[in-house]
Amino acid sequence: MTIKEVAELILQNNNFEILTHNYPDGDCIGCAFALALALKQIGKKARVITTDRSKKFEFIFSMYDAHEFEPEYIISTDVANEKLLGANRKAYEGKIDLCIDHHMSNCIDAPNKYVDEKAAAAGEIIFELIPLLGAEITKEIADCLYTAVSTDTGCFRYTNTTPRTMRIAAELMDLGCDSAYINKVMFETKSKARVELEREILENMIFCADNQCAIIYTTRKMTEGLGDDETEGIASIPRQIEGVKMGITVREKENDYKISVRTNDDVDACAFCAKFGGGGHIAAAGCTLKGDLQSVIDKLKTAAEETL
Amino acid sequence: MTIKEVAELILQNNNFEILTHNYPDGDCIGCAFALALALKQIGKKARVITTDRSKKFEFIFSMYDAHEFEPEYIISTDVANEKLLGANRKAYEGKIDLCIDHHMSNCIDAPNKYVDEKAAAAGEIIFELIPLLGAEITKEIADCLYTAVSTDTGCFRYTNTTPRTMRIAAELMDLGCDSAYINKVMFETKSKARVELEREILENMIFCADNQCAIIYTTRKMTEGLGDDETEGIASIPRQIEGVKMGITVREKENDYKISVRTNDDVDACAFCAKFGGGGHIAAAGCTLKGDLQSVIDKLKTAAEETL
Repeated sequence: MTIKEVAELILQNNNFEILTHNYPDGDCIGCAFALALALKQIGKKARVITTDRSKKFEFIFSMYDAHEFEPEYIISTDVANEKLLGANRKAYEGKIDLCIDHHMSNCIDAPNKYVDEKAAAAGEIIFELIPLLGAEITKEIADCLYTAVSTDTGCFRYTNTTPRTMRIAAELMDLGCDSAYINKVMFETKSKARVELEREILENMIFCADNQCAIIYTTRKMTEGLGDDETEGIASIPRQIEGVKMGITVREKENDYKISVRTNDDVDACAFCAKFGGGGHIAAAGCTLKGDLQSVIDKLKTAAEETL
Repeated sequence: MTIKEVAELILQNNNFEILTHNYPDGDCIGCAFALALALKQIGKKARVITTDRSKKFEFIFSMYDAHEFEPEYIISTDVANEKLLGANRKAYEGKIDLCIDHHMSNCIDAPNKYVDEKAAAAGEIIFELIPLLGAEITKEIADCLYTAVSTDTGCFRYTNTTPRTMRIAAELMDLGCDSAYINKVMFETKSKARVELEREILENMIFCADNQCAIIYTTRKMTEGLGDDETEGIASIPRQIEGVKMGITVREKENDYKISVRTNDDVDACAFCAKFGGGGHIAAAGCTLKGDLQSVIDKLKTAAEETL
């Protein structure tokens, strides 16, 4: 379907719930709230369904008061897989009416799907969609979309960034988005505890596959008392080291390990994670593993040696 | 003078030397070589005068073979102060014919000056200038200018970034600049030694002025064997810490200490550095101090307490 058809479909419906993925990132939160704000602006009812409310995105959450209503139409934004709905999976699995995404690995079986793999962030799609709904991109919506676009591109640094991404950011800046504030909160703020965590991570870094793969990990003990937003972004640490083609981050969660893979030089992170039932983009992907830390690391090491 | 007059002036002359500042950064190197390449394209002779040739910018240096000629016209790009010419100061002081810059603290007394303080990078000025010279922005020039613009904005993250910066970057990407390669080299590559250095820096960080100021330092011993490009960029470390309004970086050099100041929340880094005879921008400035490490740090602490 075309983006115009997506807009028409939305205009024919009302009482929306907008789903986000678990551990929601800036793109996911930014898209969901930008869309909710636009729907409200044109007289529709909408609410955003999330699994958690991170301090980092508080300025976005606080922009929007949800309506009371009986949901009629379910939209997912930036969700590649229903498994990623986390705690909301049970309630919403198989119920998504419209799936809007940019992940090439998207495998949601919804009656209506719009997946633009060329978009660096799902926020680029929502940026195009909102005017087609007859809504204006207000300062608040611009803030949401700048958050979406900047976070999914590592502030315009990752290889997914295109001239279109840069021009959308320019337009959002013209529309009054507070890029200085958003960049500071998203990319320039670390707590002292986070700085401490980084030092600990660097001390325990593991190299394999001829130093082409670097693995870092955080245990629950290391991240005790730290919010999810304080441990996010560490996945970019190992890939930055000279000669490293694949950087793997292992995060111990309550019952399993969340794995984030970042790659350079056309090493396919998505294919790597698919081995373990995960997915994502070519240069950034993720999966989940069970077991004890050592066995998880060993599995990843073996897979990395095979890949590189 | 207007940018058009700058172009006309250049077109009336030939046999150019283009000066850069010491410890040249991406903006300085990018501007100088972009201009040199454009001048060569329109049949003029030009060479770039630098104090050193950093590995990080090797891809730019290798783009250009200097002509043999007797210099007739001296242009400086991104140089705020003749003191910053370093080893070239003696040979060129008072001889600059045309000064092109974007630093509000620019104090070069040249017969022709074009200073655009609104430009996030001097590269934005050169981007505008090149077509006015009748030259085309080739892929190579686009690489130089993308390096200029991206490095001076911390990859579009710093508050100096404007919609114009973003649109220039988009055009440079359209013109074929290798943004992926440049971003990787400038922002995503750390040697193992650099990672080690960062850990050491974090261990020795000093807080003052009610934790609103963080000071880090590198001694010559800590940076032994590391290139200038491996120690650059550390200045952004202290300002990132939650609550820190002023981040100061002290780098021990052969005979003195190079101080870099980065600020948040409208604290004036330029005014701070002016106390010590330095200058720069409101959020990023620098100066040089003499003495032993402890006395240098004490001076900075006192000044920080006064400022905050």
